[in-house]
Amino acid sequence: MVLPMALSLIVLAAGLGTRMKSEKPKVLHELAGAPLLAHALAAGRALEPARVVVVAGHGAEAVRALAQEIDPAIEVAVQEQQLGTAHAVAQARPLLEGFAGDALVLYGDTPLVRPETLEAMRAARGRADLVVLGFEAAEPGRYGRLVVEGDALERIVEAKDASPEELRITLCNSGVVMADAPTLFSLIEEVGNDNAAGEYYLTDIVAIARARGLTATVVRCDEEETLGVNSRAELARAEAVFQRRRRAEALEDGVTLVAPETVFFSFDTVIGRDVVVEPNVVFGPGVTVETGAQIRAFSHLEGCHVSDGAVIGPFARLRPGAEIGEGAKVGNFVEVKAAEIGPGAKVNHLSYIGDAAVGEAANIGAGTITCNYDGVMKHRTEIGARAFIGSDTMLVAPVKVGAEAMTASGSVITEDVPEGALAIARARQEVKPGLARRLMARLRQIKARKAEQEG
Amino acid sequence: MVLPMALSLIVLAAGLGTRMKSEKPKVLHELAGAPLLAHALAAGRALEPARVVVVAGHGAEAVRALAQEIDPAIEVAVQEQQLGTAHAVAQARPLLEGFAGDALVLYGDTPLVRPETLEAMRAARGRADLVVLGFEAAEPGRYGRLVVEGDALERIVEAKDASPEELRITLCNSGVVMADAPTLFSLIEEVGNDNAAGEYYLTDIVAIARARGLTATVVRCDEEETLGVNSRAELARAEAVFQRRRRAEALEDGVTLVAPETVFFSFDTVIGRDVVVEPNVVFGPGVTVETGAQIRAFSHLEGCHVSDGAVIGPFARLRPGAEIGEGAKVGNFVEVKAAEIGPGAKVNHLSYIGDAAVGEAANIGAGTITCNYDGVMKHRTEIGARAFIGSDTMLVAPVKVGAEAMTASGSVITEDVPEGALAIARARQEVKPGLARRLMARLRQIKARKAEQEG
Amino acid sequence: MVLPMALSLIVLAAGLGTRMKSEKPKVLHELAGAPLLAHALAAGRALEPARVVVVAGHGAEAVRALAQEIDPAIEVAVQEQQLGTAHAVAQARPLLEGFAGDALVLYGDTPLVRPETLEAMRAARGRADLVVLGFEAAEPGRYGRLVVEGDALERIVEAKDASPEELRITLCNSGVVMADAPTLFSLIEEVGNDNAAGEYYLTDIVAIARARGLTATVVRCDEEETLGVNSRAELARAEAVFQRRRRAEALEDGVTLVAPETVFFSFDTVIGRDVVVEPNVVFGPGVTVETGAQIRAFSHLEGCHVSDGAVIGPFARLRPGAEIGEGAKVGNFVEVKAAEIGPGAKVNHLSYIGDAAVGEAANIGAGTITCNYDGVMKHRTEIGARAFIGSDTMLVAPVKVGAEAMTASGSVITEDVPEGALAIARARQEVKPGLARRLMARLRQIKARKAEQEG
Repeated sequence: MVLPMALSLIVLAAGLGTRMKSEKPKVLHELAGAPLLAHALAAGRALEPARVVVVAGHGAEAVRALAQEIDPAIEVAVQEQQLGTAHAVAQARPLLEGFAGDALVLYGDTPLVRPETLEAMRAARGRADLVVLGFEAAEPGRYGRLVVEGDALERIVEAKDASPEELRITLCNSGVVMADAPTLFSLIEEVGNDNAAGEYYLTDIVAIARARGLTATVVRCDEEETLGVNSRAELARAEAVFQRRRRAEALEDGVTLVAPETVFFSFDTVIGRDVVVEPNVVFGPGVTVETGAQIRAFSHLEGCHVSDGAVIGPFARLRPGAEIGEGAKVGNFVEVKAAEIGPGAKVNHLSYIGDAAVGEAANIGAGTITCNYDGVMKHRTEIGARAFIGSDTMLVAPVKVGAEAMTASGSVITEDVPEGALAIARARQEVKPGLARRLMARLRQIKARKAEQEG
Repeated sequence: MVLPMALSLIVLAAGLGTRMKSEKPKVLHELAGAPLLAHALAAGRALEPARVVVVAGHGAEAVRALAQEIDPAIEVAVQEQQLGTAHAVAQARPLLEGFAGDALVLYGDTPLVRPETLEAMRAARGRADLVVLGFEAAEPGRYGRLVVEGDALERIVEAKDASPEELRITLCNSGVVMADAPTLFSLIEEVGNDNAAGEYYLTDIVAIARARGLTATVVRCDEEETLGVNSRAELARAEAVFQRRRRAEALEDGVTLVAPETVFFSFDTVIGRDVVVEPNVVFGPGVTVETGAQIRAFSHLEGCHVSDGAVIGPFARLRPGAEIGEGAKVGNFVEVKAAEIGPGAKVNHLSYIGDAAVGEAANIGAGTITCNYDGVMKHRTEIGARAFIGSDTMLVAPVKVGAEAMTASGSVITEDVPEGALAIARARQEVKPGLARRLMARLRQIKARKAEQEG
Repeated sequence: MVLPMALSLIVLAAGLGTRMKSEKPKVLHELAGAPLLAHALAAGRALEPARVVVVAGHGAEAVRALAQEIDPAIEVAVQEQQLGTAHAVAQARPLLEGFAGDALVLYGDTPLVRPETLEAMRAARGRADLVVLGFEAAEPGRYGRLVVEGDALERIVEAKDASPEELRITLCNSGVVMADAPTLFSLIEEVGNDNAAGEYYLTDIVAIARARGLTATVVRCDEEETLGVNSRAELARAEAVFQRRRRAEALEDGVTLVAPETVFFSFDTVIGRDVVVEPNVVFGPGVTVETGAQIRAFSHLEGCHVSDGAVIGPFARLRPGAEIGEGAKVGNFVEVKAAEIGPGAKVNHLSYIGDAAVGEAANIGAGTITCNYDGVMKHRTEIGARAFIGSDTMLVAPVKVGAEAMTASGSVITEDVPEGALAIARARQEVKPGLARRLMARLRQIKARKAEQEG
């Protein structure tokens, strides 16, 4: 067995994306909760490259910031002028000077390529100097055609230069290539720009390599892996492909999706076996749901963890830092943020629990609010095990309610409540007989008078 | 006219469903709010069988519990070892000893078969000893092929044993059969298990019957009626078929579904003429909506009744026992449970009304909550006709507010309010000039100091 | 260049629509938030006709009311008996007596015809006396076939009268026609009703015109433009076509729709560039969203304006008159109606803001409610810039909170709060040690006793 060679990854991310009609660089538009570039990088980094170079151009600073955020080890080369894909790859050369292993070229706007596909390209390097990723196109149209003989890639023919016979070829060029890095850069040196656009095309390296007597081969992938995003419609299409794949995986893993087409996953959603997800659920980034939990209809989750057997929704919103314990319930019109809800605890209706810890089996009444913000700072609320928070309790943080303590409904709790104690902060009820009728009569009179004056 | 013979229904529900990857027996997974087995039983029971036998195996106790819950008269036979469909049917034999009528064999994991189809099978018994349900398969693949001559079923050929010519047959075997019960059991006796899986296949009875000189015939149904559920993906597909059918029926009945693909029905949803259902509405089990009501977007209904002309949502949740009167309104972020909302009453915003009765034309202010749970027991709230409940009123049950009474906003009502009276339970407002500015300044100071210390 | 002739528009809207199974006249059913008739009128009125006549019949008064509401200048002719399309057009004749320009006949139940298509018909009048709108039918079935020679329309053949060769024609008749008005009415005079239905068909004017030596031509449009609504299923199909078109336009305009199939627009929705719309958003009529705003999942907007960079939702509801300032935030379970939310202001959780003005950078705490209704009249709330409204504040309108003022959480504010002041209206907290435990113990006792008595 031959160990794989050290790999460098070059991701082209300089394009403007005019057809996006956006102020934002194209590769920063999001798919499944992460920028396009992050998807391409994730696919490439699955091969554990020794070096990663992103070639930025339009919006280079924002692109650099993202790359650094993903991993500070990622290097960024800047392509000042967009003179074609070969020119873009050439910008990575100074950074990879002396790197002896392979180089894989990916595209920051092509988010759906699978790591398995790239692994297959690596394996194919064993049989050829240059590996090109191809796909069977449903409508080959303007794609470059791959002319092959058995495994060998003979040449790439652009659609406009193709013979009628060549136009019938459906195996097309994705643009993704892998080769020994020094060879790649040496091939690129010879690429010219004698074409209508005056650009340096990476595609040309195949002809140059063949002329030098080097060998080339093709690895095939699904057409959808090569879907490039150049417009909002293509972005929506890529999102749809991602969601279709991810839904199928969830079903395969033993998750019930009542209506898969209404459930939206993020790039990193993790859902356990026997979880039931009802229609219309959105998983933002950073969500983990454990075995047997239920995510009911119209729920929205981000950056949270839901334990075994918990029931979320309908109409629940879990925000980052929500940590829902085993068998706990978060019900309708409830928002939880940066808060642990203990095992078996219930927050069933119309509440906001933020910056808080709710103890095991505590019961949080309808309309409860943790008043966590004083206009300047955020403060924490702690509620003990088996505590009973009455409806419409305001918990003015920082504040603690002890285990098995109670608050009377409608109370504003500003001081700690000891274990087992009852806290009450409300006015006595007074009843004024007949006053409602008299008030209503007077209001109707006023209204009638107004109407008269206005009329 | 010949009266239909007494019928016994045998439903096979013993399978493990490995591909579901679930702790739950396959036939208990839900479709449109009811277990798969309940769907199959409902289709079969539409023929009013004299006897019903469910053959359980994996998860037999849970399956028995469901069967008993549906109808205590349903009998359950247990197939200890899963030795094939013929063997499963044989387990029903002791229970049906001496039963002289017909027997119909259905499958607990095949929820979409229509009663009309089964009626057609019953009718076809007039022309043959054995009736097999077949379907035209879009992709016949591994299905058994039905070899027919006119109406007569000659034999069933398994795909692996079929000649090239037979493989071109698209009429396939659903596995559903009907025959005279004693005949069926006698045929089964002859079924062998000399095959790769070592199982006893019900399919084999056709060949045995033909060898005995009995006649067989085919009744045809849509392929989707025969969709068996063996994985979560197939469960989702079956749900999609159910919903498509049900949406088409609703449209046909004079219901407006603005976006049919976003409305989810349960097996028993009833919707009247001229009801408008906006996008994204989920009907759980037990919902009836009367003529001319509106169900606005993002609403979730279960176990409730909505009267003529009522308007629900957007963002409303009706839970079991919600009974919404004529022309009443239940608005956004409102939950109603086990409560009658009287004719013309309004609960427009951010409220929880549970275990309550709200009188005709009463107005429930925003943020109203019936505090129905004291931590141990649930209690009732009664609100009279034309009462006006001020915003953020807590109604601490048990409590009554009389007709035409009012509560002041922010009040916690713990004692009954007589008719026409005003109840108020709140503190007087105090104003501290300049204090807000001083407080904010101090908080900003504290924050700055903290930042300094931490930095 | 020849100036277009004065145009009169005749819209047929008399049909009963039996298959709708509705109490409401067919043309008043809504598509994308507006009645079908309004869509047809909008398409026709884009050509700026000098006169518009709606021919009403079933539900004539409701149809007249709608037409008048759209524009009081629209005239309504009543077709007392529905004797066919030619008869319907004839009802418009008295109103258009002496009108010398062209007449265009549209259908009130055909809402998807594009203004561009009608413009093309107007242009085609230059080459023929009579212009008929045709479409290539995917399944020509029972449609009338258009027999053409080059540009010239020779005749229309009804499917039932067509030769096998004619049945192979896929160019079909939409029923939309344009001609010089006096000519049109004169042609109609000759139409007979010697057919199975005994109706006067507008289609017959082509043969009559040809017999007179007049010329006819065809303008082609997409089949979906001619989709007529005769059932709820067709209404849903038309809605789907509308939404598909509108979603594609939004993407084309530089709007991100994460899941276009889950976003519903109204006929008049306006969305700026770089707006991100998450899954499951409903735009009712009258919504404008400016550049760079975010509309998060599960939001419902009607009659409102969202400024640059504002963030709405998830789970937000904006009702008519909501005016959201630049960079403002309206969060989960929040309803805003007839209220301005100032630039940078935040209403993040569980609030109802109605009939109000919220100043720049004000912070509205969770659970805040403007108590705008006293049972008879609505009143206004005004909140100053940078004010801090504590959680669960009830603002009993009419009331003003000054700039930089604060309210303590849980307060009911009934009197104005000066600038920079703190208003507080709540009871002191009392703590009763051990009382919660004693209360719970007693409640459990009572419950156990009850269970005993009942058991």
